[in-house]
Amino acid sequence: MDLKTRALALHKKLRGKIEIASRAKIKSLKDLDLLYTPGVADVSREIAADKEKVYDFTNKWNSVAIITDGTRVLGLGNIGPEAALPVMEGKALIAKEFGNVDAFPICLKTQDKEKIIETVKAISPSFGLINIEDIEAPKCFEIVERLEDELDIPVFHDDQHGTAIVVLAALLNSLKIIEENTKAVKIVIAGAGAAGYGITKILSKYGFRNIIVSDSMGIIYEGRPLGMNTYKNDIAKISNHNRESGILEEAIENCDVFIGASGIKNLIDYKVLQKMSKNAIVFLLSNPDPEILPSQAQKAKNVKIIATGRSDFPNQINNAITFPAIFRGALDSRVKKLTYDMFIKAAEALANSVPKNKLSKNYIIPNINEKYFFDKVVGAIK
Amino acid sequence: MDLKTRALALHKKLRGKIEIASRAKIKSLKDLDLLYTPGVADVSREIAADKEKVYDFTNKWNSVAIITDGTRVLGLGNIGPEAALPVMEGKALIAKEFGNVDAFPICLKTQDKEKIIETVKAISPSFGLINIEDIEAPKCFEIVERLEDELDIPVFHDDQHGTAIVVLAALLNSLKIIEENTKAVKIVIAGAGAAGYGITKILSKYGFRNIIVSDSMGIIYEGRPLGMNTYKNDIAKISNHNRESGILEEAIENCDVFIGASGIKNLIDYKVLQKMSKNAIVFLLSNPDPEILPSQAQKAKNVKIIATGRSDFPNQINNAITFPAIFRGALDSRVKKLTYDMFIKAAEALANSVPKNKLSKNYIIPNINEKYFFDKVVGAIK
Repeated sequence: MDLKTRALALHKKLRGKIEIASRAKIKSLKDLDLLYTPGVADVSREIAADKEKVYDFTNKWNSVAIITDGTRVLGLGNIGPEAALPVMEGKALIAKEFGNVDAFPICLKTQDKEKIIETVKAISPSFGLINIEDIEAPKCFEIVERLEDELDIPVFHDDQHGTAIVVLAALLNSLKIIEENTKAVKIVIAGAGAAGYGITKILSKYGFRNIIVSDSMGIIYEGRPLGMNTYKNDIAKISNHNRESGILEEAIENCDVFIGASGIKNLIDYKVLQKMSKNAIVFLLSNPDPEILPSQAQKAKNVKIIATGRSDFPNQINNAITFPAIFRGALDSRVKKLTYDMFIKAAEALANSVPKNKLSKNYIIPNINEKYFFDKVVGAIK
Repeated sequence: MDLKTRALALHKKLRGKIEIASRAKIKSLKDLDLLYTPGVADVSREIAADKEKVYDFTNKWNSVAIITDGTRVLGLGNIGPEAALPVMEGKALIAKEFGNVDAFPICLKTQDKEKIIETVKAISPSFGLINIEDIEAPKCFEIVERLEDELDIPVFHDDQHGTAIVVLAALLNSLKIIEENTKAVKIVIAGAGAAGYGITKILSKYGFRNIIVSDSMGIIYEGRPLGMNTYKNDIAKISNHNRESGILEEAIENCDVFIGASGIKNLIDYKVLQKMSKNAIVFLLSNPDPEILPSQAQKAKNVKIIATGRSDFPNQINNAITFPAIFRGALDSRVKKLTYDMFIKAAEALANSVPKNKLSKNYIIPNINEKYFFDKVVGAIK
């Protein structure tokens, strides 16, 4: 059976990848005296007197809302909240299996920015963390910023923050392999959506000095007359200090690292990669169809390390490696706000967790289902 | 240890009465190919092409949102969303244990009617049913009506509908015991909140012709100048056909059935109950403090049957007996809207499920934790 047939059959059989489970067993009516009325009234009174106790007496401490409006789901685009639900259940499944986090998918019927913000604020008392997922850019950035300011619980933006963490970790380990431990490497990022924005921010904050970002209008530079917005202005400020203009192909010339976050299949030809420096590093994150297939990219003999977003090639760069640990860390340490400083520490922890004897050009970061790195990443969030 | 100490200790130990559980186990990366990207993309595509398939491929078919704004929690009043959470988790626990329903508590930060409606509509795609819980009257009625009209999934109002079902069932069996099988019995209901409204509606729709309802302003009648609203006008239309006025005590004279849904401790004295007819039926639903303690009510020798909302007296009338079965029935039969006709059938099923040899004045309805009635109530919702 092909993948599609098997995926549909498995989903139909499961009819939901997650469910609710009881932590308390009800053996007799006496148990309900404590778990429900009248006993629960005393618990409610305690919390009414001191709201913080909701973290001691309920599951808020371990609950995450996975929020999407279904506008940018995987590479499928604006498919709506119902079609987004199996993906969000997949996220919740991964959060539970790898992080022991209770994440619940909330797929929204509205795609209006203000309504999304209002809705998340309204439902926030039940949750210890909000995770924003698969909402189109630039709307997602403003939603995240507003929620960070207006909520008293942390907000994680998986597409932005999660991807950024894994990319930085993968890059740090790749540089170890090619023995090029300098922040002067030239990095070109194709794509300025949630992933491209997050990657640019984390690499810049980490100290990489030579970053060029391009979008569908070409290289982004301060003052570019077309296709700019608040977030692309941010990108322009922290990248491309020489204000180069032009097209992606020009930027790639002599660059050391190419990061594809474009969502565009076959964006690039191996002949373009040949123009990169020797020991070139190539991350092709678009999923399921990378910017160039690894088998093609390998034709550029100067390319030393290749990673993709897919699990069927080596070096999968996927935010699922890290979000269960980020959730766990943020919930455990009760941080009010998640910051790029924390994300850098998480990326370093993830990179450094890989044992030296394991590290190779085909193993730059751990696989999703490995566990050895988990506690180290958790510990970075505080 | 007293109840409070034990309840707090148990809640602190559990730290949440429910959690998320995985229906799918991840043994290797290959499993994620199907459960997550890339396989899940095909599932999303199927649902994008036919939204109804979300019921086949995700947990929507079994998911209930338990919605509250914390304005009227148990007898505790407006204690807010955080303090409401342990109660809502208790409901979710009962839904799972007794109905195998996956209910998730959503405690809202807003108490504004329009914002509550907007929020519930926004989050509805993840759920198969909305349960409204512990929202103050009359706001709750308008929220329920609006959601019934504007959502494509059913809405249950536990305080209104759930209580009504159990009261009708308890009344039908009480009348069997006193061998008074007539719809002409005089019924007095104290309280016109969510419970009083629902009880009045179901009894009237069932055919009881002689119902008087009183609230804090006295007996409700059509055209009463003070303290009326749309919902009290509804009550006036379906009760008190002789337009009696006056106070509760006057109404109780010669009545056959007294139903307390007032939320007021010690509302009534046994000497008032002595004015009821012989073989009087007295339901004292206010929780945890009934309108009169059963030990006091028994002093009125004409009182034959006493029920309360508490589990430590016989004949507990609590909506927790029925909501897991109503959820199960509504989800299984995919009804678009729940109606009082269904609730009457559910009440009859609940009443008739009690075996004749079990029925007695101290056992008019099943206990919450008994299971024999469940399938019969489920079958009534279609």
